[in-house]
Amino acid sequence: MCALAPMLAHAQAGGDIGTSLMQRADVRAALDSARTDEPRAIEEQIRLCEIPAPPFKEADRARTYADAFRGAGLRNVRIDKEGNVLGERPGRLPKPHLVFSAHLDTVFPEGTNVHVIREGSVLKGPGIGDDCRGLALILAVVRSMNKANVQTSGTITFVGTVGEEGLGDLRGVKALFSETLRGQIDRFVSVDGSGYGITHRGVGSRRYRVTFKGPGGHSYGAFGLANPAHALGRAVAAFADLQVPTDPKTTFAVGRIGGGTSVNAIPFDAWMEADMRSVDAAALQALESGFLKAVDDALAAENARWNQNGRLTVEKQLVGDRPAGLTPASSAIVEAAVSVTKALGLTVTLDEGSTDANTPMSLGIPAIAVDAGGNGTGAHALEETFDTAESWKGTQRALLLAIALAE
Amino acid sequence: MCALAPMLAHAQAGGDIGTSLMQRADVRAALDSARTDEPRAIEEQIRLCEIPAPPFKEADRARTYADAFRGAGLRNVRIDKEGNVLGERPGRLPKPHLVFSAHLDTVFPEGTNVHVIREGSVLKGPGIGDDCRGLALILAVVRSMNKANVQTSGTITFVGTVGEEGLGDLRGVKALFSETLRGQIDRFVSVDGSGYGITHRGVGSRRYRVTFKGPGGHSYGAFGLANPAHALGRAVAAFADLQVPTDPKTTFAVGRIGGGTSVNAIPFDAWMEADMRSVDAAALQALESGFLKAVDDALAAENARWNQNGRLTVEKQLVGDRPAGLTPASSAIVEAAVSVTKALGLTVTLDEGSTDANTPMSLGIPAIAVDAGGNGTGAHALEETFDTAESWKGTQRALLLAIALAE
Repeated sequence: MCALAPMLAHAQAGGDIGTSLMQRADVRAALDSARTDEPRAIEEQIRLCEIPAPPFKEADRARTYADAFRGAGLRNVRIDKEGNVLGERPGRLPKPHLVFSAHLDTVFPEGTNVHVIREGSVLKGPGIGDDCRGLALILAVVRSMNKANVQTSGTITFVGTVGEEGLGDLRGVKALFSETLRGQIDRFVSVDGSGYGITHRGVGSRRYRVTFKGPGGHSYGAFGLANPAHALGRAVAAFADLQVPTDPKTTFAVGRIGGGTSVNAIPFDAWMEADMRSVDAAALQALESGFLKAVDDALAAENARWNQNGRLTVEKQLVGDRPAGLTPASSAIVEAAVSVTKALGLTVTLDEGSTDANTPMSLGIPAIAVDAGGNGTGAHALEETFDTAESWKGTQRALLLAIALAE
Repeated sequence: MCALAPMLAHAQAGGDIGTSLMQRADVRAALDSARTDEPRAIEEQIRLCEIPAPPFKEADRARTYADAFRGAGLRNVRIDKEGNVLGERPGRLPKPHLVFSAHLDTVFPEGTNVHVIREGSVLKGPGIGDDCRGLALILAVVRSMNKANVQTSGTITFVGTVGEEGLGDLRGVKALFSETLRGQIDRFVSVDGSGYGITHRGVGSRRYRVTFKGPGGHSYGAFGLANPAHALGRAVAAFADLQVPTDPKTTFAVGRIGGGTSVNAIPFDAWMEADMRSVDAAALQALESGFLKAVDDALAAENARWNQNGRLTVEKQLVGDRPAGLTPASSAIVEAAVSVTKALGLTVTLDEGSTDANTPMSLGIPAIAVDAGGNGTGAHALEETFDTAESWKGTQRALLLAIALAE
């Protein structure tokens, strides 16, 4: 948090980073440029969105995005081993080092029609808001800063991450913090989705696919064997009665179950997919422990019920792991985001969510996610829309935030 | 049981129905005819088996079988409303009235290749033993009785039933006893499958498909709603701990489970298919009550857990209902079957099973199922086989049994 001390001092001195920045001629010029440049940003949003980027298959969009980074004048543009696109805008000093990112991937599988339709101010297409908007906004921020010759004290690395969605499981941002820029990031912002909210609570999640297995057999002839579906039922029943805190909000659900081939056969396997979430890492860990104990106890109980005949085994596969984290509302990075939002006359909303910012939050690195302006509907749905009306306000807010956090 | 009193008296008098019958010249001639006729029976077994007879679609095979009944000289040949084929061989009197049957249907769906391959003495094809063998055997029995002019005291109705397998749920034999020949049947034999066993314990079954339903929703955003998968788990867990007697053998299993669309959503439904069986009707009923209570308790518990938020409902659909029944080993019909089996030098095996005989057993009408000779493998599998080596012994046994039970 020490890296943010000067800004915090500034705020505490009765100043306000948003208001202060607005008084700088270069910043005002950059804001004007952002507004003027918005039609181009929207064209880029469409162009990027029409390049498919399914989970684990973001490479085509990443290459195009890297070219756009070069075209916008970023330095040392590269694609790291995980597939993230990076480009630098050096400040007077290397530090503080701000990462300002959006994510490349969508939730949509290969073969999805990604054509974007424009109807008046509204764009329709899968991923148009989440997060093609963030990707395009970053390019607009870089161009506006360059056009107005905004010089920052610290350095900004702009990033397009892979694997933010679903089973991507934050693999891009995890690699960024554990390998590519390990130990080098002081502040982190993810620009993700439409609207004007500020996400400072990172909802963590742990997801499991649990499979009970046994020999199976005829329901009458082989009766007396342990039954994987029965073991599963025991596990689910115990899980269903776990107690969780309301605050910090902590949730759990079995989302899918399956198993068996015929009504008249003891199944050879039965499985569930379970989802556990919390904004609090300790609460999430306690819930996960309860879940795993429910599974182990169910295995033991079903095997004991049949005196170990047709002894079952269980596989517990972790299929999702998003760390929980919290950047306090009183922290400098949140205060800066609030300040620039207010300075532009926008409404301040502090949110919770699951974004790339979860990873730095869990590491204690100041991090938030901010919405990218405009007005969106149907994220993760094929009929997703993004209304561009006054979306330049989102670009301006992100621009001010980037400058503020690179001071 | 009074209808069997004369035969029982005969056995108790130190006589033996099998031995006695073997002393009759007409019966010996019929037995010779059965042996001589066996190649024709095998040809008919193949011909009938190559007419598809999926569950609920036995009509083509039924028409051909009715023609074969007419060709064999049976009277009043007809197909009843349910689809069963009936043909009579009148005795000197209408009573006792014996029904001697095999089943027309197979477990195989439409489109299954039903071509039969012959390799030496072995026939390969879906349903070749279960129960094309029984169908062909019945024709051979009729022909042999007619050729030897065997006159019985009572009347025999030969029947090809529909719906013996799986979800057919004994619909043919149920209709026979509840409608077509209601109140008119004194004794019942089903000739079903290969080998030489005598099935006198009818394993009853009750099968349910149970579906819990609720509004569903996002696993984090909608948390606090009752979860259908959790309710299902509670029901399965309670079912898994029910206690059942070892004797009479009583069994239970959840055979299939399913539900949910995504790991990160509370499902809008979750379901299971459960199978319960017993040779004892009371034990089966007690088990079924326990199952239904487990389901109802689970619904109440899950709704209570969430204070009736997202209140769940449950559907309990009975998808299988085969009555349990027992024809005592000491009963006249079983003694007759044992006697004729011994008279032919065959090994006596008393079995349990789920056959068309379950229905009359449950009604207290003397009933058994007998295997149809030969040696089979892979019943209900595509690669089912039937070895015809000495299969004429099965025909002879059935022939003797039919004559014995029509006396």
